[in-house]
Amino acid sequence: MNKVIECVPNFSEGIDMDIIGQIADDIKGVDGVKLLNVDPGKATNRTVITFAGEPAAVVEAAFRAIKKAGELIDMSTQKGEHPRMGATDVCPLIPIANISMEETTAYATQLAKRVGEELRIPVYLYEYAQPDKSRNNLSIIRAGEYEGFFEKIKLPQWKPDFGPAENDVKRGATVIGARNFLIAYNINLATTSVPVANAISADVRESGKVMKENGVVLRDANGKAKTIPGSLKYVKAIGWYIEEYGAAQVSMNLTNIEATPIHIVFDEVCKRAEVHGTRVTGSELIGLIPLKAMLDAGKYFLSKQGLSLDVEETELIAAAIRMMGLDELAPFNPQERIIEYVLKG
Amino acid sequence: MNKVIECVPNFSEGIDMDIIGQIADDIKGVDGVKLLNVDPGKATNRTVITFAGEPAAVVEAAFRAIKKAGELIDMSTQKGEHPRMGATDVCPLIPIANISMEETTAYATQLAKRVGEELRIPVYLYEYAQPDKSRNNLSIIRAGEYEGFFEKIKLPQWKPDFGPAENDVKRGATVIGARNFLIAYNINLATTSVPVANAISADVRESGKVMKENGVVLRDANGKAKTIPGSLKYVKAIGWYIEEYGAAQVSMNLTNIEATPIHIVFDEVCKRAEVHGTRVTGSELIGLIPLKAMLDAGKYFLSKQGLSLDVEETELIAAAIRMMGLDELAPFNPQERIIEYVLKG
Repeated sequence: MNKVIECVPNFSEGIDMDIIGQIADDIKGVDGVKLLNVDPGKATNRTVITFAGEPAAVVEAAFRAIKKAGELIDMSTQKGEHPRMGATDVCPLIPIANISMEETTAYATQLAKRVGEELRIPVYLYEYAQPDKSRNNLSIIRAGEYEGFFEKIKLPQWKPDFGPAENDVKRGATVIGARNFLIAYNINLATTSVPVANAISADVRESGKVMKENGVVLRDANGKAKTIPGSLKYVKAIGWYIEEYGAAQVSMNLTNIEATPIHIVFDEVCKRAEVHGTRVTGSELIGLIPLKAMLDAGKYFLSKQGLSLDVEETELIAAAIRMMGLDELAPFNPQERIIEYVLKG
Repeated sequence: MNKVIECVPNFSEGIDMDIIGQIADDIKGVDGVKLLNVDPGKATNRTVITFAGEPAAVVEAAFRAIKKAGELIDMSTQKGEHPRMGATDVCPLIPIANISMEETTAYATQLAKRVGEELRIPVYLYEYAQPDKSRNNLSIIRAGEYEGFFEKIKLPQWKPDFGPAENDVKRGATVIGARNFLIAYNINLATTSVPVANAISADVRESGKVMKENGVVLRDANGKAKTIPGSLKYVKAIGWYIEEYGAAQVSMNLTNIEATPIHIVFDEVCKRAEVHGTRVTGSELIGLIPLKAMLDAGKYFLSKQGLSLDVEETELIAAAIRMMGLDELAPFNPQERIIEYVLKG
């Protein structure tokens, strides 16, 4: 079984399609890597590129892209709505198949070392790749942004993990690390009511809901609102209404699908929807999903019905699509939505 | 508020479209009546016509249709797969809006009396219009069919309620009565498994499921299989798989939606689907539905969510469509599916 990792670098250029195209071409040029998505944002002046493949190839492609971004993007004149600190602002590696987070972290560290030593760009490690808990969070590392980093980088506690302890005028500094696969997942409700969707969201999301007594928010000694945690760890959720669908949704980010798989999220939202008097009609997955998540979901739903698990992979996937209603709003083509299939195709 | 009744006569001609057309034309010719459907069957050699309107007009149209069928259909040569005893085989009146079953029964009796006295056709009353429980069931009345009625009609216990106690060679005898509105209603499941759909059906249908111990059917002293009744009265249900939809359904007949409304049926099937490890994705209503059933459903589902019932009729209907997923397989246009709207349109 091939090891697969994904890489989702964010570059500080969202307008000049020539620059974006050159960076993407460098990624595509590496054997064993498949470019999955290029998503430029004009207002943010930032482009998110997604690619995946076997680990060494992904690291090589990431290195080339970071190098090219440093040559083409000038941070001393860059402006945009999104916080940023470098030409390559952040570059996470994500385990997809047959690879542990520990191994992925080793690849991230290897990439960071090359970027620091060969390209002489200051690099900070983050998330799983950063053992120091005081500096493993992206927004804390990035605080001060490009303009503030000329000072911040001199502080002993903000010495980069690799590369010079001096902000690069043209390229800034960058953040490299390993993190979990993120899934943006929306569950469709048989209601148009945003309050109902929000009540369900508050029941399930890890951050939970604010405690109230007679309509007044309860606070602790420090004035912080007391909360009741929701039932699902690693889940962020809000309720909203989508005019186009004529339906409210529980809109979620799943930040650790190993610990809290998508099928568990689906089932729990179904239960809470029932408590709030409505019903789940289907769901909507944004972007791609690892094969294992779909197979696990298929097995889970067939088991629940007492049906045989001794079936083809395609049937497990079909059961997952059917039970979660992934095709309610638009067709769900496994060849286009499951990362491993896209890499093969 | 206008009183509305529906009439669904079955005529023993399903092949000769000229005859069917002449009968339908007589119905259409009556002011205050709307022809809703003409459904001829070749193999059964039988046509089911549906029309509705204000009660006196419906009775007049039914009378004219029965008269015309008697003139055009010759039972002495008629053949077909469906059991039948007369040119007009059966003619039920059904309360739809602002009218009780008692009043509807009175109209049915008035129609039967006219048919017996003016047309000289033997008429049996059935269902709510027949107080004698030994002869209120259509299939018991019809037993023996046209060929057997020359003898059966002479028996004291089978003396017709109206008309001569002699079978009419050309027109046979007929059955007129009052019954509840019937709804054919299918609930869609997120599974392809017929056993799962059948297990849900057996849980909810009035006839329930056969009791077994170690795989052996339990029987009473007379050898009759013991059963555990299902949770819903006036509901017949089976599970099946529809290739076209790629989904299993619980396929139902609801025979008394006053006692067991459609929204209660929907909710109960949702609950049992969950117990059997699957999920309801939507539902499918065959034919038309009275407005009250849709409004009651809308109110029920909004109440469950704690939402205001002080909304427009269209919004109640939209909530019912949304919660029951009536538009999952095909668009559900209230103007074409709600009887009162069709009558107005």
